[in-house]
Amino acid sequence: MTKLTINSVKNSKIDHVNFNELPFGKVFTDHMFSCDYVNGEWVNPTISEYGPISLDPSARVFHYGQAVFEGMKAYKDENDDIFLFRPEDNFDRINKSAHRLAIPEFPKEFFFEGLEQLLLLEKEWIKTGKGNSLYIRPFVIATQPAISASPAEEYKFMIICSPAKSYYAGEVRVIFAEEYSRSANGGVGYAKAAGNYGAQFYPTSLAHKEGYQQIIWTDANTHEYLEEAGTMNIFFRVNDTLITAPTSDRILDGITRKSVLQLAKDNNIATEVRPVSVAEIKEAANNGSLKEIFGSGTAAVINPILGFKHGDFKFELPALTDNNYSSFFKKALNDIQYNLAEDKHQWRHKVTK
Amino acid sequence: MTKLTINSVKNSKIDHVNFNELPFGKVFTDHMFSCDYVNGEWVNPTISEYGPISLDPSARVFHYGQAVFEGMKAYKDENDDIFLFRPEDNFDRINKSAHRLAIPEFPKEFFFEGLEQLLLLEKEWIKTGKGNSLYIRPFVIATQPAISASPAEEYKFMIICSPAKSYYAGEVRVIFAEEYSRSANGGVGYAKAAGNYGAQFYPTSLAHKEGYQQIIWTDANTHEYLEEAGTMNIFFRVNDTLITAPTSDRILDGITRKSVLQLAKDNNIATEVRPVSVAEIKEAANNGSLKEIFGSGTAAVINPILGFKHGDFKFELPALTDNNYSSFFKKALNDIQYNLAEDKHQWRHKVTK
Repeated sequence: MTKLTINSVKNSKIDHVNFNELPFGKVFTDHMFSCDYVNGEWVNPTISEYGPISLDPSARVFHYGQAVFEGMKAYKDENDDIFLFRPEDNFDRINKSAHRLAIPEFPKEFFFEGLEQLLLLEKEWIKTGKGNSLYIRPFVIATQPAISASPAEEYKFMIICSPAKSYYAGEVRVIFAEEYSRSANGGVGYAKAAGNYGAQFYPTSLAHKEGYQQIIWTDANTHEYLEEAGTMNIFFRVNDTLITAPTSDRILDGITRKSVLQLAKDNNIATEVRPVSVAEIKEAANNGSLKEIFGSGTAAVINPILGFKHGDFKFELPALTDNNYSSFFKKALNDIQYNLAEDKHQWRHKVTK
Repeated sequence: MTKLTINSVKNSKIDHVNFNELPFGKVFTDHMFSCDYVNGEWVNPTISEYGPISLDPSARVFHYGQAVFEGMKAYKDENDDIFLFRPEDNFDRINKSAHRLAIPEFPKEFFFEGLEQLLLLEKEWIKTGKGNSLYIRPFVIATQPAISASPAEEYKFMIICSPAKSYYAGEVRVIFAEEYSRSANGGVGYAKAAGNYGAQFYPTSLAHKEGYQQIIWTDANTHEYLEEAGTMNIFFRVNDTLITAPTSDRILDGITRKSVLQLAKDNNIATEVRPVSVAEIKEAANNGSLKEIFGSGTAAVINPILGFKHGDFKFELPALTDNNYSSFFKKALNDIQYNLAEDKHQWRHKVTK
């Protein structure tokens, strides 16, 4: 393994940042990590000043979307210690995504050394206090300058960081998809492939025009089963049972999703992981047993959904009661993330070097 | 409309290029066209020296695959006149693709003025003689430096050019897809969206390992119907009838495909545009009525397929006879493209300024 080169900046730009007003993903820290794949190996792991990268216009990422990413967060406790949440799962998943996109896997040592050294350099950017975090974006792009439609032989792996408040501002209502789809059987829906996201923008913009913020995607064959929301997995609370779709090659294996399922088990909340039909959710809405819908994801953590629309059917979820699940899971997850609660499952990863 | 700025190079690199050995899409001409979308309009149309572009690592194309492209070719006749083939269709399609990817449409005047001025500057790169052409790659990428998962507000439109021989070297055999898929109903399969291509690389690499060069994708629901090959539409000749799948939201509306259908009509060749089942093609293979399979696309023009595999079923197409369709359509298309035949349908577009 090549040694990590660190070129740290002399003057941080942190004093120019208003941490009280942080739009998601627009402000980046002082440094970035990068590493190149050339001649069959990952080389030049480097932390340097955050700034533009130069690519040939024929770089394959521009033409064929050969690119994958991850989303992670770093949290700080009251002692200024920095924690990651289940980072090995992000590492495993970016390589699973990479594999499906014919991108060479990234070595674990590079990933963790690059990531942790970067976080230690940026520690002032991680503010204490619940809701504050540093959003971390590892990603890999095909850089080879050649437009033949085949896997590239050159790539760049990078990690960039953006200080964050919570991801969703305002109220979230959703449309259950009836026409557009996110992914096919045998496709790349389970991967954090760049192309999965851009493909959702247009249908989501149509939802916006109707006053809905997100779409819950349904299976492309029948549009009868609810799958995921593109940036979130989705949970339904019917009476006291928590229901979510099983992962598949169409649905992202969300780290927050599986943490919620584990916490439910730990707290004797009944769960059902099975196909969830639009029909049963509409019936549960009609008969009063549908208590909550919420999304789970790294950026959003837990995001309650206030209402949904399917065709002409519109429904407003009831007001959340004191024992609502979305607040319970959000608090339980945050308490672990911010080192405020016992970490039974070793999900917390302290950053120390 | 802002005026086109042209900064031409002083010294062409053309003398360093071996036109007898041109790998597809690796050699680029002296200039490129670019244009930026900022503050709600396309500005700065510029032709400048071909070279790297600089982007923020948070540019949305890297993360969300918000990118579309086109493939076109310029041809030269013996009088050194330059011709495009149905370029209005490429212009219409890049905007159709852009629309689906929530990318602002590109103005027609910019497209044609940028393209034609670029071609006139690069006229020495377009060699006479059949098989020689200049492959043209218009593309649009989301450049806005912000990783929120929503449509970008800033884009770059570019045109780059690469001198080309024919796209496919060697023999092409295909696998009919049984597990992996290219696109979903309600997805982006009909668009030339970057992510559609990277998603095919891994399954195609598995085909390569078995000695097959391409995959003919089947419908994601049942894998019973043959759709397209990712970089080519597909035609089957059964007895003397030419059969191809109808376009849909899963299948690219290929310009070569529709030109083949028109030429078939002009030449009294029976065509059927309808779903084509794997079962019927295997039956036709078994009973001797399957005469040819070929792909059509801008890069390949017409590419005969020598054999296919579906599960354990392997079939070698019979040797092409003198009246084979693939050679007929290739010659008919090339004759129009190279200004060697009458252009009944006004497909040829002479580049003159």
